[in-house]
Amino acid sequence: MQSDGDTVTRRLKTVEGHLRGVIRMVEEDAYCIDVIRQIQAIEAALNKVSSKILEDHLNSCVITAIQGNDKKERERVLKEISEVFEMSTKV
Amino acid sequence: MQSDGDTVTRRLKTVEGHLRGVIRMVEEDAYCIDVIRQIQAIEAALNKVSSKILEDHLNSCVITAIQGNDKKERERVLKEISEVFEMSTKV
Amino acid sequence: MQSDGDTVTRRLKTVEGHLRGVIRMVEEDAYCIDVIRQIQAIEAALNKVSSKILEDHLNSCVITAIQGNDKKERERVLKEISEVFEMSTKV
Amino acid sequence: MQSDGDTVTRRLKTVEGHLRGVIRMVEEDAYCIDVIRQIQAIEAALNKVSSKILEDHLNSCVITAIQGNDKKERERVLKEISEVFEMSTKV
Repeated sequence: MQSDGDTVTRRLKTVEGHLRGVIRMVEEDAYCIDVIRQIQAIEAALNKVSSKILEDHLNSCVITAIQGNDKKERERVLKEISEVFEMSTKV
Repeated sequence: MQSDGDTVTRRLKTVEGHLRGVIRMVEEDAYCIDVIRQIQAIEAALNKVSSKILEDHLNSCVITAIQGNDKKERERVLKEISEVFEMSTKV
Repeated sequence: MQSDGDTVTRRLKTVEGHLRGVIRMVEEDAYCIDVIRQIQAIEAALNKVSSKILEDHLNSCVITAIQGNDKKERERVLKEISEVFEMSTKV
Repeated sequence: MQSDGDTVTRRLKTVEGHLRGVIRMVEEDAYCIDVIRQIQAIEAALNKVSSKILEDHLNSCVITAIQGNDKKERERVLKEISEVFEMSTKV
């Protein structure tokens, strides 16, 4: 992580707390639909963290790679972005 | 949760372990794209848990409500399913 | 389609018009990102149509099946809902 | 579209044909769940087209912008990628 790892860590720990709350809900026999809604809220939060990480990545590693002289490295970095984009449409 | 709360709890605890691993990755400066991929894997796992919860819910609460005499309750239960379905297309 | 096929048809025809507009954009060499954004708008519209169809389905076929005496049919109808829900988290 | 507009056009026209087939299904009163499944298949196909467009975009406009001297343009291009990524997690 080239940048802003602290913000990302903090947000992921918030998600972890949220997830522990959901586990408690299930243990205490909460209503199914309420549990599903909380899981969806967690997923929305995770999506935001991923977007933040990608943004940081674009503004550091990707700029460096594309401005560098290593064609293979450039291709690798761009391919990865295509791949996480494609995956993001599936989860 | 009408049924199979144990399976759901167990799976959510696995996700929690996975998430803690991702937080550690970020703290140890792992490569951004690897972190994003792990977050996407967590989301895929959460989707499976939601599907499992919905399936259990359909086979318990929903059947009971629809076979019951309370029209309002029936409508409420069906509306909730529409809502979580609609939300699932957004996260 | 048990109900409200007209609304669904009308919305899908709107999506068709939108899609034809996007094809024209590509043929006229529009900016890539603008094309991606339009495709995402089409997907959001399709998600809404799916939600509408599911809602109608729940309020017709599903009620009938669950109130009926055919256990197999009941299970089939509920299984289908689980399946489209699970798929909705993937597209 | 900097590259491979023909492939994209062809795929979008295939999706258009698929969509017309779904409209026909609705007009002919097809089973709701079958319609939803076809709409989900269309969305999966659209996701693939978006990924293809983004891949072409990264390998043309984005490389040019990042290797160029215009800092504003560079930032704009990277911001757009973050934006479509974030949106892709929502549709």
